[in-house]
Amino acid sequence: MSQIKLISRASRVLSGAAVRSELTLGEAVSAQPQRNHTSVRTMASQRKTLTIETLNPCIKTLEYAVRGPLVIRAGEIEEELEKGVKKPFKKVIKANIGDAHAMGQQPITFIRQVLACVVNPELIETAKFPADVKQKAKAILAACGGNSVGSYTMSLGIELIRRHVAEYIEKRDGHPSNWQNVVLTGGASNGIKNCLQLLCNQVDGKNSGVLIPIPQYPLYSASLAEYGLGQVGYYLDEDKNWALDLDELERAFVEGSKQYAVRALVVINPGNPTGQVLTRKNIEDIIKFAQKHSLFVFADEVYQYNIYAEDSKFFSFKKVMTEMGKPYSEVELASFMSISKGYMGECGLRGGWMELVNMDPDVQANLYKAISAMLCPTTVGQTAVDCVARPPQPGEPSYCLWIKERTAVLDSLNSRAKMIVETFNNMEGFTCNIVQGAMYAFPRIELPPKAIEAAKAANKKPDVFYAFKLLEETGICIVPGSGFGQRPGTFHFRTTILPQPDVLQEMLDVFKTFHANFTKQYS
Amino acid sequence: MSQIKLISRASRVLSGAAVRSELTLGEAVSAQPQRNHTSVRTMASQRKTLTIETLNPCIKTLEYAVRGPLVIRAGEIEEELEKGVKKPFKKVIKANIGDAHAMGQQPITFIRQVLACVVNPELIETAKFPADVKQKAKAILAACGGNSVGSYTMSLGIELIRRHVAEYIEKRDGHPSNWQNVVLTGGASNGIKNCLQLLCNQVDGKNSGVLIPIPQYPLYSASLAEYGLGQVGYYLDEDKNWALDLDELERAFVEGSKQYAVRALVVINPGNPTGQVLTRKNIEDIIKFAQKHSLFVFADEVYQYNIYAEDSKFFSFKKVMTEMGKPYSEVELASFMSISKGYMGECGLRGGWMELVNMDPDVQANLYKAISAMLCPTTVGQTAVDCVARPPQPGEPSYCLWIKERTAVLDSLNSRAKMIVETFNNMEGFTCNIVQGAMYAFPRIELPPKAIEAAKAANKKPDVFYAFKLLEETGICIVPGSGFGQRPGTFHFRTTILPQPDVLQEMLDVFKTFHANFTKQYS
Repeated sequence: MSQIKLISRASRVLSGAAVRSELTLGEAVSAQPQRNHTSVRTMASQRKTLTIETLNPCIKTLEYAVRGPLVIRAGEIEEELEKGVKKPFKKVIKANIGDAHAMGQQPITFIRQVLACVVNPELIETAKFPADVKQKAKAILAACGGNSVGSYTMSLGIELIRRHVAEYIEKRDGHPSNWQNVVLTGGASNGIKNCLQLLCNQVDGKNSGVLIPIPQYPLYSASLAEYGLGQVGYYLDEDKNWALDLDELERAFVEGSKQYAVRALVVINPGNPTGQVLTRKNIEDIIKFAQKHSLFVFADEVYQYNIYAEDSKFFSFKKVMTEMGKPYSEVELASFMSISKGYMGECGLRGGWMELVNMDPDVQANLYKAISAMLCPTTVGQTAVDCVARPPQPGEPSYCLWIKERTAVLDSLNSRAKMIVETFNNMEGFTCNIVQGAMYAFPRIELPPKAIEAAKAANKKPDVFYAFKLLEETGICIVPGSGFGQRPGTFHFRTTILPQPDVLQEMLDVFKTFHANFTKQYS
Repeated sequence: MSQIKLISRASRVLSGAAVRSELTLGEAVSAQPQRNHTSVRTMASQRKTLTIETLNPCIKTLEYAVRGPLVIRAGEIEEELEKGVKKPFKKVIKANIGDAHAMGQQPITFIRQVLACVVNPELIETAKFPADVKQKAKAILAACGGNSVGSYTMSLGIELIRRHVAEYIEKRDGHPSNWQNVVLTGGASNGIKNCLQLLCNQVDGKNSGVLIPIPQYPLYSASLAEYGLGQVGYYLDEDKNWALDLDELERAFVEGSKQYAVRALVVINPGNPTGQVLTRKNIEDIIKFAQKHSLFVFADEVYQYNIYAEDSKFFSFKKVMTEMGKPYSEVELASFMSISKGYMGECGLRGGWMELVNMDPDVQANLYKAISAMLCPTTVGQTAVDCVARPPQPGEPSYCLWIKERTAVLDSLNSRAKMIVETFNNMEGFTCNIVQGAMYAFPRIELPPKAIEAAKAANKKPDVFYAFKLLEETGICIVPGSGFGQRPGTFHFRTTILPQPDVLQEMLDVFKTFHANFTKQYS
C-alpha cells in the first residue's frame, strides 16, 4: 500500500476509527489474521501474536495531536500538489509544529561551524573558521573516547558539557548548580519521559497521577497514557492570560486525588500552546502549592529564551524556589531544556538537558542506572548543547556574528508574535491572548451553531472540523485546540509564529478571508 | 558529593546494596526524607514523593551490566591514575563495550565528509571534498525541511533514506523490501524498545513473556524489566559454538508458558556476547519453531557486517523466512540494524533502522503513532545511515578510499578475532569458542574452589569477583558472564576484540600472567 494509505490508516487509528477494509501493506501482510481464532492454524493464514486485541492497551490510548491526522492529511495534500492536482492554493503552510528551520530560520553560524569540525576534525586545520570555533571543537573531541564523536559518551553526557550547562544555569539564576545533577538528553522529550516513568507505582493503593495544564503540550498526555499514569488536568485561566490559578490547582488536586495518588505537577513556562510567561508571584504560589502537597515539579522551560512581552521576564523554578528558602527550596524539581527552541531551533539534532533538584539520591541513582541502558545521547546533539550553554563570549572572534544572528532571530520572532496577535484580535470571532513568550498563539474562535452541527454530522469535533476545512481550502495547517485540551464549549487552535514575516502576513490574510466565508456559510 | 561518590552509589544500587550513610548530593539534597513518615511535615524536612519505596519497581529491578559497577570502578581508577595514584599498570583498557572509535578505530572518511557538508552546507561549495560526497549531502538537505538538518524529519525518518535502506535490504537478501516498513531509529536500542513495548498486555490471563538467549545482550533483560515483561531464557549451546538448540527452545517455551503468555523470541545473530554466526539450517529451525508457537521474532542483526570465520555467512531472518515460503514467510518479524557496529563503529551518532515484516497493519499504525510522539531520530544519525545503506559505488570518486578503509577495518577485526581466541585457548583454565562474528569473545574460565569461597565471603558472584581483581591488578575492564547470563556453575566473561592489535597483544599477555597468579593464589 502507498505511504498515503498507510498514513491514512494511522490517521484513522488516531481518530479512533481504524478501518481494516481495503488496506493492505504489501503482499506479505495482506493475509489478515483471523480474529479470536486462538487454536486453529492453517497453512493459509499464520495467526499473529500481535493484533489490535493483544496490543499494549496504553499504546492504543496514546495520542499525539501535533503529528496527528491533520498533519498526515497535510502531507497527502503536498503530494497531491506535487502531482499537479489543482487546489485553491499553491503550497501547504505548516504552522502546526515548532520547527523553525523548516520555516526558513537560518542556523546559527557558530553552532554549525563547531559541528562541522567535530564530525570532520580535518577541518580544524583546513577550514577558514574562527579560532574559538576550532578551540571548542578540540575541547569536545578531547572529551570523546579516541578523540571521535563516533564513540559512546557517558550515559549522562560528556562531563565537560555537563559542567558548562551547570555554569550556564548558575549564571542564569545566580545560584549554584551541581553539574552532577545535570543530565544531557536527546531533546527535552527523552528527559521528561525518563522522569515521568519513575512515578509508575501504586501509592496508598492508588495509581500515581500527574497534574498537567489544560491546554498542554501533548507529549505529556501521550507519555502519561503510555506509562499508564493518571492524567489530572488543571485549567489555565484564559481570562488572566493563561496564568495558573491556585483555586483551580487545588480543585484539580482534590478531584484527581479521588482516583489517583497525585504526585507530580507539570508546568510549561513559557507556555505551550498558550504563550504565557508566568510572573514571579505566580511561580511562588505554584511552588507553595507543590510543597504543601509534596508534589514533584516538572518545569518545562524549553522556551526560556523566547520572551517577547516587554513586562515579561523568565524566572526559572529553580531560582524562585531557591530564593524562597526552606521548606520551598526543598521541593523536588526537574527542569527541562532543549536546543530545538530558543534562537537555535536545532530540532533535528536532538539535544537538550535536564537539571534534577532535590531528587532523593537513591532515586537519582536508579534513574541514572535506567538511562545507562540507552547508552548515550547523540554526541552531535551534545556538542550543540555545549554551544548553547557556553556560547562565544565578548572579545572572542565569533561573538559579534553570534550576537547579531541571535538578536535577529529573537527580534523577528518578537515582531511576528505581536503581528499575529494583533491580526487575530482584529478578526471577527477571534480572541487571542498576548503571546508573551514561546512560539505559539492559541486564539479562541467562535464557531456558529450550524458549524457545530455540521461537525457532529461529519463525526468530528468542531475545532477539528474547522481545521480540516481550513487545510483543504487554504493549505494552512494548524492544530485544533482539542489536541491540547480546552474548557468544554470553547474552541481554539494553535498556530506557530514561525512562518517568515511575508509568509505569515499572507497566511493571516488568507485566514481572515477563510474565516469570514466559513462564518457566512454556517450562519 | 563527587562524581565518584554518586556513581559509587549507583554502583551499590546496581549491586543491590544501596547504602545511604555518608552519601550526600550537595546541600540541596542532603536533608534526607524521613521514611514511612506520611503525614507529619516539618519546616526542617520536606517529605519527598519520590523515594526508593515509591519508585517505579520496574526501574529498581532493571540492570545493565555493560555499564554496571565494574565500569564505574574503571572510571574511578582512571581518575585515580590521573591524580598520580600508583597502580601496577599505566592505563585502563576498556574491553567492556563495543565502542570501536574509543579503542582507536578511525572513522570512514566518506561518512564524515558527508556529515560535515550537511551540518555546514557552505562546505559543499568551499571544501575539497569529492563530488559524490557533495551530491549525497545535497540530496539529504533537499529532503530536509528548509534545507536544514536542524528541522524535524518525519517521525519514521526521511523518506529518501528509508528508500535507500529498503534498497540495501533488497540487495542483501535478493527479495523485495517495502520502504514503508523501514523505520529509522536512534541506534538499534530505540527500535527494540519500541517493539518490545507493544507486547505489554495480558493474554489468556497471563502477562506476556519473551524468549531471550542466555547469554544475552543485557539491553533485553533491562528492557523486559523496565516494561514488566516476563524474561524466558533459553540457553545457547556452548558445546555447539553457541548454536540455538531446538529442544532447549521447546523446553524454555514450555517452562515459560507456565507463568507467561510467551509471545516473542529474541535472536541475536551474529551473537552478542557469544560471537557465533547462525547457520542457515539453524535459522530455518528457529523460524519453524517461531511459526509453530506464533512468536514474534526479534532479529537483532546489528553485526551483519562482522563475519570472520571462513565457513560462516550472514543470512538475515527475513531472507531465510521468505525463501521457506508459507506459512514460514508469514512469521511476524522485526529486524534491527545499527551504524554503531559493522565497519563504521559510529556509536556516538545514534543511528539505526528496523524493518517490520508481517506486522499486523493496525498494530503497525499504532507503533508509528507512538513513535511520532518522540518527534524524530537525529538527522545526523539518519545521514550516517544513508551513507551505510547507499555507500559509494564502483566508479564514484569516493569508492576506492571507502572500500580500502572498510576492508582494513574488517580485516583487522578478523585477525584480532582469531588472535584473541587462540590466545585464550592456549591459556590454562580457559576455553573459548571461535569468534565467528560480532565483536566479542566470551571465554569460559575455570575458577578454583577457593576463589569461589573468597567471592562468597566478599559477597560477590565468582565471575564478578574475578573481574574486579583483574581490573584492580591490571586495569583491564571486562564484563562478567553473569551480566549476560550463563549456565549455573559455569563462569565466563565478555571481552571485545576492539583494542588495536598492539594493545590487544599487551592485554592478552597481562591477562595470562594475572590468571596464572590468580589460580596460584586460590589453589
